[in-house]
Amino acid sequence: MIELTLKDGSIRQAEAGQSAAEVIKGIGMGLYKAACCVKINGEVKDLRTVLTENCSFEVMTFDSIEGKKAFWHTASHILAQAVKRLYPEAKLAIGPAIDNGFYYDFDVEKPFTADELVKIEAEMKQIVKEGIPLEQFELPPAEALKKLEEMGEPYKVELCSEHAGKGEPISFYKQGDFTDLCAGPHLMTTAPVKAFKLLSCTGAYWRGSEKNKMLSRIYGTAYPKAAELEAYLKQLEEAKLRDHNKLGRELELFTTVDCIGQGLPIMLPKGARVIQLLQRFVEDEEQRRGYLLTKTPLMAKSDLYKISGHWDHYKEGMFVLGDEEKDKEVFALRPMTCPFQYQVFLNRPRSYRDLPMRLGETSTLFRNEDSGEMHGLIRVRQFTISEGHLILRPEQLEDEFRGCLELANYMLTTLGLADDVTYRFSQWDPNNTEKYIGTPEQWDEAQGAMKKILDHLGIHYTIGIDEAAFYGPKLDIQIKNVHGKEDTLITIQIDQMLAQLFGMEYTDVDGTKRRPYIIHRTSLGCYERTLALLIEKYAGAFPLWLAPEQVKLIPIADRHMDYTLELARKLEAAGMRITVDDRAEKVGYKIRQAVLEKVPYMLTIGDNEVESKTVSVRSRRDGDLGSMTQDALLAKLVEEVATKKI
Amino acid sequence: MIELTLKDGSIRQAEAGQSAAEVIKGIGMGLYKAACCVKINGEVKDLRTVLTENCSFEVMTFDSIEGKKAFWHTASHILAQAVKRLYPEAKLAIGPAIDNGFYYDFDVEKPFTADELVKIEAEMKQIVKEGIPLEQFELPPAEALKKLEEMGEPYKVELCSEHAGKGEPISFYKQGDFTDLCAGPHLMTTAPVKAFKLLSCTGAYWRGSEKNKMLSRIYGTAYPKAAELEAYLKQLEEAKLRDHNKLGRELELFTTVDCIGQGLPIMLPKGARVIQLLQRFVEDEEQRRGYLLTKTPLMAKSDLYKISGHWDHYKEGMFVLGDEEKDKEVFALRPMTCPFQYQVFLNRPRSYRDLPMRLGETSTLFRNEDSGEMHGLIRVRQFTISEGHLILRPEQLEDEFRGCLELANYMLTTLGLADDVTYRFSQWDPNNTEKYIGTPEQWDEAQGAMKKILDHLGIHYTIGIDEAAFYGPKLDIQIKNVHGKEDTLITIQIDQMLAQLFGMEYTDVDGTKRRPYIIHRTSLGCYERTLALLIEKYAGAFPLWLAPEQVKLIPIADRHMDYTLELARKLEAAGMRITVDDRAEKVGYKIRQAVLEKVPYMLTIGDNEVESKTVSVRSRRDGDLGSMTQDALLAKLVEEVATKKI
Repeated sequence: MIELTLKDGSIRQAEAGQSAAEVIKGIGMGLYKAACCVKINGEVKDLRTVLTENCSFEVMTFDSIEGKKAFWHTASHILAQAVKRLYPEAKLAIGPAIDNGFYYDFDVEKPFTADELVKIEAEMKQIVKEGIPLEQFELPPAEALKKLEEMGEPYKVELCSEHAGKGEPISFYKQGDFTDLCAGPHLMTTAPVKAFKLLSCTGAYWRGSEKNKMLSRIYGTAYPKAAELEAYLKQLEEAKLRDHNKLGRELELFTTVDCIGQGLPIMLPKGARVIQLLQRFVEDEEQRRGYLLTKTPLMAKSDLYKISGHWDHYKEGMFVLGDEEKDKEVFALRPMTCPFQYQVFLNRPRSYRDLPMRLGETSTLFRNEDSGEMHGLIRVRQFTISEGHLILRPEQLEDEFRGCLELANYMLTTLGLADDVTYRFSQWDPNNTEKYIGTPEQWDEAQGAMKKILDHLGIHYTIGIDEAAFYGPKLDIQIKNVHGKEDTLITIQIDQMLAQLFGMEYTDVDGTKRRPYIIHRTSLGCYERTLALLIEKYAGAFPLWLAPEQVKLIPIADRHMDYTLELARKLEAAGMRITVDDRAEKVGYKIRQAVLEKVPYMLTIGDNEVESKTVSVRSRRDGDLGSMTQDALLAKLVEEVATKKI
Repeated sequence: MIELTLKDGSIRQAEAGQSAAEVIKGIGMGLYKAACCVKINGEVKDLRTVLTENCSFEVMTFDSIEGKKAFWHTASHILAQAVKRLYPEAKLAIGPAIDNGFYYDFDVEKPFTADELVKIEAEMKQIVKEGIPLEQFELPPAEALKKLEEMGEPYKVELCSEHAGKGEPISFYKQGDFTDLCAGPHLMTTAPVKAFKLLSCTGAYWRGSEKNKMLSRIYGTAYPKAAELEAYLKQLEEAKLRDHNKLGRELELFTTVDCIGQGLPIMLPKGARVIQLLQRFVEDEEQRRGYLLTKTPLMAKSDLYKISGHWDHYKEGMFVLGDEEKDKEVFALRPMTCPFQYQVFLNRPRSYRDLPMRLGETSTLFRNEDSGEMHGLIRVRQFTISEGHLILRPEQLEDEFRGCLELANYMLTTLGLADDVTYRFSQWDPNNTEKYIGTPEQWDEAQGAMKKILDHLGIHYTIGIDEAAFYGPKLDIQIKNVHGKEDTLITIQIDQMLAQLFGMEYTDVDGTKRRPYIIHRTSLGCYERTLALLIEKYAGAFPLWLAPEQVKLIPIADRHMDYTLELARKLEAAGMRITVDDRAEKVGYKIRQAVLEKVPYMLTIGDNEVESKTVSVRSRRDGDLGSMTQDALLAKLVEEVATKKI
């Protein structure tokens, strides 16, 4: 007998040699049916694992990430089995679980059509109905290779050969007429994969390299219950509708054109207005918090980047102008603001009285990334960011770091994004030192300082090893887009190395020269990315203060134009962004169109309104608000803008 | 006898064969003494010119540009004569009159020191005192060359050889022991050059090419009267004090550093603040005038520039990223906004209802100019400009052109620059067509349209041939810097060619597709140049609304700090940019320093002020304003900012 320590701390006796599945069955049939895999001593294992000694024992259902992965992995095998039944000539490549489902890559003559996907789904349904048990077995490498060759699966042979070298037995899973090279874990049978959906078929290079053959990849997702699948598909549909790359173009916030290039979005008037409002909001808030505004050049000679370390540690990400071997002067577009903004500090000798020096800049940066990496407003080659550097006496570090966090939180709260973020403490990798400048002692000091501050402030964070900037550790404020993809929005970094490289120093109270600490930070993410997140957060319906068009005035007939224009001038004088829709169209049509354009308020003006000097107000969110006096409307709008109501 | 028609229209008889000088002597000795040269039939001629037939005859004194040039040219010969007397081994290069004086280039072993310039001035004084007559003579080319070789003047030999080929006689001027190869015209004797000053000695390459030897250039200026010279030198001193490149650095508005590069100024916090204020002023005013804001990328693939014509007509002025022969994609930084902003129009089909479409952008541009050309904030490699394009139905051209002029005038008036500008109508050159796109007919049409509008609006302009943009004619609003150097501040251009190249069209009222006209224009010059002009205009003492630091609060003792901070918060809440000078220094010292920093208002706070809840106000311009209540002060400041008082 052995002892299993369950998650709740209780001990369960089991016979040595029993499988995990048998133990779970003993606990209860309900749990057995829900089980997807187990964690033994913290490691994810197959349900078929034989238990031989005392261990901790956790049953993973679909509710856990590990359980989902096993479930979706089994679904991908069901997909492959269905394809092989319908297209025996299809060659199998790989079929893993991914974030929200699974895929399988097939080598077939032509991509699968939508109709074919429907047929494959039907075959999968049959396989699930058959409730086929999955069996795991192992073969010595040579036999495994022989078997795969006999099966006529060249991609599997290639994969197996790579593993074969290690000499360890090779794992397979078999379900009825279908066998696959696979390390698992998997469900016990195909039966639980009750609800699934094949989502799309796209091309994908074998092993991700464009030198290899293009395969056909089928994406799908699966759930234990139909209702769960439906909820997910609905959410997917909603995400598609909110996708900034689609909605942002439809609402004419931005566009891209081939002759300018990927990753170089053009802000159309509505997008440019939102960014202008955000930029002014940030610059004004920074001014209130004692920041000094700077405006530094977007390019510099290579000399600058050689001092800063960018030339050695970041050159591949930079756009370089000229050729070092041919040209007298080589310039590069800046990928960061740091070495430029330091020149402001260096402009004259500094004393402790000048510190903390908080420098802020609305800074345009350039990153030389592959065209294939570009995506909407999220991955771009040129972007503008509220970047800044705080140059500090070491004893000011914690206070100023807290100030940066407070500013970031104020921004996120105002924009309604505060609940959507998580924190990541990005550290260097002591085993990958060539990526970084500075000594291990300096890294220990900077990371130690950041850890102390974060713990002191009670920030909950995850740790990212080898994710630091090349000059220091970062606290990254992370946010997910509508598809669940995570990106950094705001970053706060501690640096003591660049001050040294640039010879920055100040005279302290006692007359000695000291080296300052530097915090690199953003108040908000880059404006392009922030706009993308706001489009998705609000499905294009921005809060009034950020709406590019705030009020649409709709006169019912020509005779209402004078009054409409009088009201329009009044609203404009109060700083409102308005348009008058004087087209010869029906009022209902105009209102529907204004709603589609996500205009926050629509004012209709007819005989009643002209006569009583009022206006009929319709809110995009709350519908008909009835009649209001001009002054009441103005007061309402001005207050909503002033408080940045969300 | 011949007849001379004088400037006033009267006819004067003269003997054929008389010199111009003799005729002038006959008119009066006063005029003879003042005469520097003459205009015969509109052509500038030497006073020694022999008159042989009827002609128009104008005497040019120092009051005219032509007279000044002859005067300064003679001064340069006096300089050369003095140098040859003191340094016989010095070789003569060239010595022309320039805008505000003259220079002479000498080949000497080492540059002249300040002490040597004093000695040369003394020798010049002697030459003037001697009143040496200047004689003109001519030699056949071969003899001229021989003479210059005997004189041991290799640079003059080189110049003479180039002229010798034409076979015409070569002109010399001789004054006592000094002879120079020279076409004149010159004064009759050295006597009138009463007041002169040698200003500096700098290096200058022979014929301006760095492949040649570096010579020593002595700059000087000269006037008929000492008082005139003194007035000029005072003005020069004043100009130096106002020079933005000096004052702007002293006031910490901007700086440059070697490792970033020439022509890439760094805006320090004060300069960045002024530019931010100007930018917001322009963007808000454009919004009020119906402009749509855009924000387009700072770079594009070469594809875009190939469509726009920049690749063929402007490539040398552009920073190109990558190599067409090696790279898949070649990008270039934008030198203009036009082809980018057109994409906004092209984003969807347009109708006559969309026009006029007024697009404005705070646009950063890049020009690849030589390092040697760079100067302060005036000649830079990267600059930001309020650029925009109006896309129009042809019949809207005049109204919209007028609108652009009105906007420009509003900007200039608000900044106090309106009286300092002149207008230049920059046209193409029909004899230099390869510089331009489009047909002669298109140029005639565009230039004709602009001429009609300018004449209609009663704009006084000069014409600049071969100064148009490559795509159309320009109205350039010109302004001079403190040294008298003219540059373009604002430009308004008419273009019908780029619309064609980009396939821009709109559906007219009658359903036909038509080609729009485009006005390219700026609301204000580039912000860097505008800042430079404002620094010089106001000698760094900006109007209150533009002053980076508006109010300095000076508590007399520590016990006044609470009240000072209370007042500071109140001023900040009203949007004022303030600082508190709480250093342990004397009040008088703090005030003197604030005046040097050009802070518009200084507030001193002592016991009286704390007790009576007032403040003692000192204006940088008007001195002590006495005591004011907090509210009176606030009202005064807020009104001065709101009205943008200058």
